[in-house]
Amino acid sequence: MYMQMYLAIYATLMSFNCATNLQSTDSFNEFLAVAVDAAKKAGEVIRKGFYQTKHVEHKGSVDLVTETDKACEDLIFNHLKQHFPSHKFIGEETTAANGVTQLTDEPTWIVDPLDGTTNFVHGFPFVCVSIGLTIRKVPTVGVVYNPIMDELFTAIDGKGAFLNGSPIKVSSQSELLTSLLATEAGTTRDKATLDATTNRINSLLYKVRSIRMGGSCALGLCGIACGRIDLFYELGFGGPWDVAAGAVIVKEAGGVIFDPSGNAFDITAQRIAASNPLVKDAFIEALQQSA
Amino acid sequence: MYMQMYLAIYATLMSFNCATNLQSTDSFNEFLAVAVDAAKKAGEVIRKGFYQTKHVEHKGSVDLVTETDKACEDLIFNHLKQHFPSHKFIGEETTAANGVTQLTDEPTWIVDPLDGTTNFVHGFPFVCVSIGLTIRKVPTVGVVYNPIMDELFTAIDGKGAFLNGSPIKVSSQSELLTSLLATEAGTTRDKATLDATTNRINSLLYKVRSIRMGGSCALGLCGIACGRIDLFYELGFGGPWDVAAGAVIVKEAGGVIFDPSGNAFDITAQRIAASNPLVKDAFIEALQQSA
Repeated sequence: MYMQMYLAIYATLMSFNCATNLQSTDSFNEFLAVAVDAAKKAGEVIRKGFYQTKHVEHKGSVDLVTETDKACEDLIFNHLKQHFPSHKFIGEETTAANGVTQLTDEPTWIVDPLDGTTNFVHGFPFVCVSIGLTIRKVPTVGVVYNPIMDELFTAIDGKGAFLNGSPIKVSSQSELLTSLLATEAGTTRDKATLDATTNRINSLLYKVRSIRMGGSCALGLCGIACGRIDLFYELGFGGPWDVAAGAVIVKEAGGVIFDPSGNAFDITAQRIAASNPLVKDAFIEALQQSA
Repeated sequence: MYMQMYLAIYATLMSFNCATNLQSTDSFNEFLAVAVDAAKKAGEVIRKGFYQTKHVEHKGSVDLVTETDKACEDLIFNHLKQHFPSHKFIGEETTAANGVTQLTDEPTWIVDPLDGTTNFVHGFPFVCVSIGLTIRKVPTVGVVYNPIMDELFTAIDGKGAFLNGSPIKVSSQSELLTSLLATEAGTTRDKATLDATTNRINSLLYKVRSIRMGGSCALGLCGIACGRIDLFYELGFGGPWDVAAGAVIVKEAGGVIFDPSGNAFDITAQRIAASNPLVKDAFIEALQQSA
C-alpha cells in the first residue's frame, strides 16, 4: 500500500520533472532562435554600414559607427523585449548612456550590438554582433554573428556549440610552444598599461608559436571555440557584453574560460582568458610569469 | 615629296609602335590571366588542406603544410612554365631547397605557393597564394588569392588594382593617430630581435589607433591596397616571394611601398613598409623614432 502510494507519487514527480525539462529545453531553443533572428537583422545593418565607410570621410565614418551601434542595439533590444518582456537587459550603448547596470540572477540579455568598432570604421572584416543570455549570472545562451564573413556562432548551455549549424570544438593542441595566441593591444594609452601590455607580449612570444590580433574580443573567443587559435586573453575590454555570448560558446565547444591570473572567470571583471583544457595550466603559468 | 615620305615613315613607325603597345598590353593581360588560373588551382589544393588540418593530429598537420606547399609550388610553376617557357622562376620552396636564386632583369615569376603557413596549420583564415612577375626587377603583375575567403587581388603595372574584379584604392587616412597599423611578430626568437620587435610596437601604439596582426605578409599588403588598414610594416620576412605581388597591387591601388627606414624599397632586403601617400612621412618618422 505504502509502496504503491510511493510509486504513484514518484511517477507524478518524474512526469512533472520531465515536463519541466522539456519546457525548459523548448525555452532555451526559443531564446536562441529569437537571439539569432535579432543578430541577423542587426548584421544586415552592420553589413550596409561596413561597405559605406569606404565612401565617407573619416569623420563621417566615426559618426556612422555611432549611428550603426545605436540602431543595432535598439533593433536587438526591441526584438528581444517583444518576445521576453520580463527579462532584464544590459547593453554597451545603454550602459554608456545610463551608467553601470547591475547583473542579477534574473534572465538577462547582455548585448554588444557591434563588437570591433575600429575594424568597422576601417573596413577590416572582423566585426560582429554579440548576444548572450545569463541565468543566475551564468552565461546560458550565446550568439556571435560576423555579417561580413557570414559566420554565425551559437551555443546553449549543455547542448554544444555550432558554426553555421555545424558542431565545433576547441583545438587539441597540448604544447604551448606550438600554440597560436590571440590577444588585443587594448585602447588605454597610459605608459604603465602600455608597457605592461608589450612586456607581456614580449614574455609570451618566447613561449608560443605566434601571435594574432584581430580587434574583436567576441570573435577571439569564437576563434578558441572553433580551434583557429589555441590561446586567448584580453585585459581591460569594455564590459560583460564583450564576453557573455563567447563564454558559453567556448565552454560548449569543450574549452575553458578563466581569469588570466588563474582564478575563476568573473563576467564583470573585464579580464578573460580562454583555451582548450590541455594547455590551460601551461598558459596560466606563462601568463603569471609575464605579469 | 620629302613631307610625304616623312609622313609615310612616321605612319609606319606609329603603327609598329601601336602594335608593340597592343601586343604588350595583350601580353600583360595574358600574364595576369595565366597567373590567376594558377592561383585558383593552387587555391583549391590549399582549401582542401585547410579543412583537413582540423582532422589530423598536430604533427600530421605540419606534414600537411609541407606537402601542400610543395604541391602548390609544383602546380603553379608547371602551369606558368607551360605558357612562358623562356621566363625565370623564383619560389620559396625551390629556394629553400637550392639556395638563393639571383633576381635578374629577365621576366621572373616570384611565387609564394602558401603564405601564412602557421595560419594554415591552425585553421586561421588568412592564407593565400602570392604570384608576382618582375620585369627588369620591377614588380609588374601581381596576384594574391585567399581561397578561404575567396578574395582575389590582382594588378598590372599602370592598369589599376582589383579585388574580385572591382577596382580598389588605399584609404584616405591622413592622421597617424586615427590610423590602423598592421604588422607581424616574425619568427625570430632571439632576445635582441624580440625586444626590438615589442619596443617598436610599444612606441608605435602611442601614435596610432590600434594594431592588427594577421599572419600573412602578402595579405597585409593587400589590406593596405583595399584600405582595410592604413599602415603596414614587416621586418625579417622570408623573401621576395612575400612581397613581389603585393608591391604592384599596393602601387596600383594608389599606395606607396618603401623601406621602414624611409629609404627606397628593395625587393631582396626582407624589409617592407606600405601606406597611402598622405600618412607616409608621418609613418616613416614614427618608425624611425621607434627603432
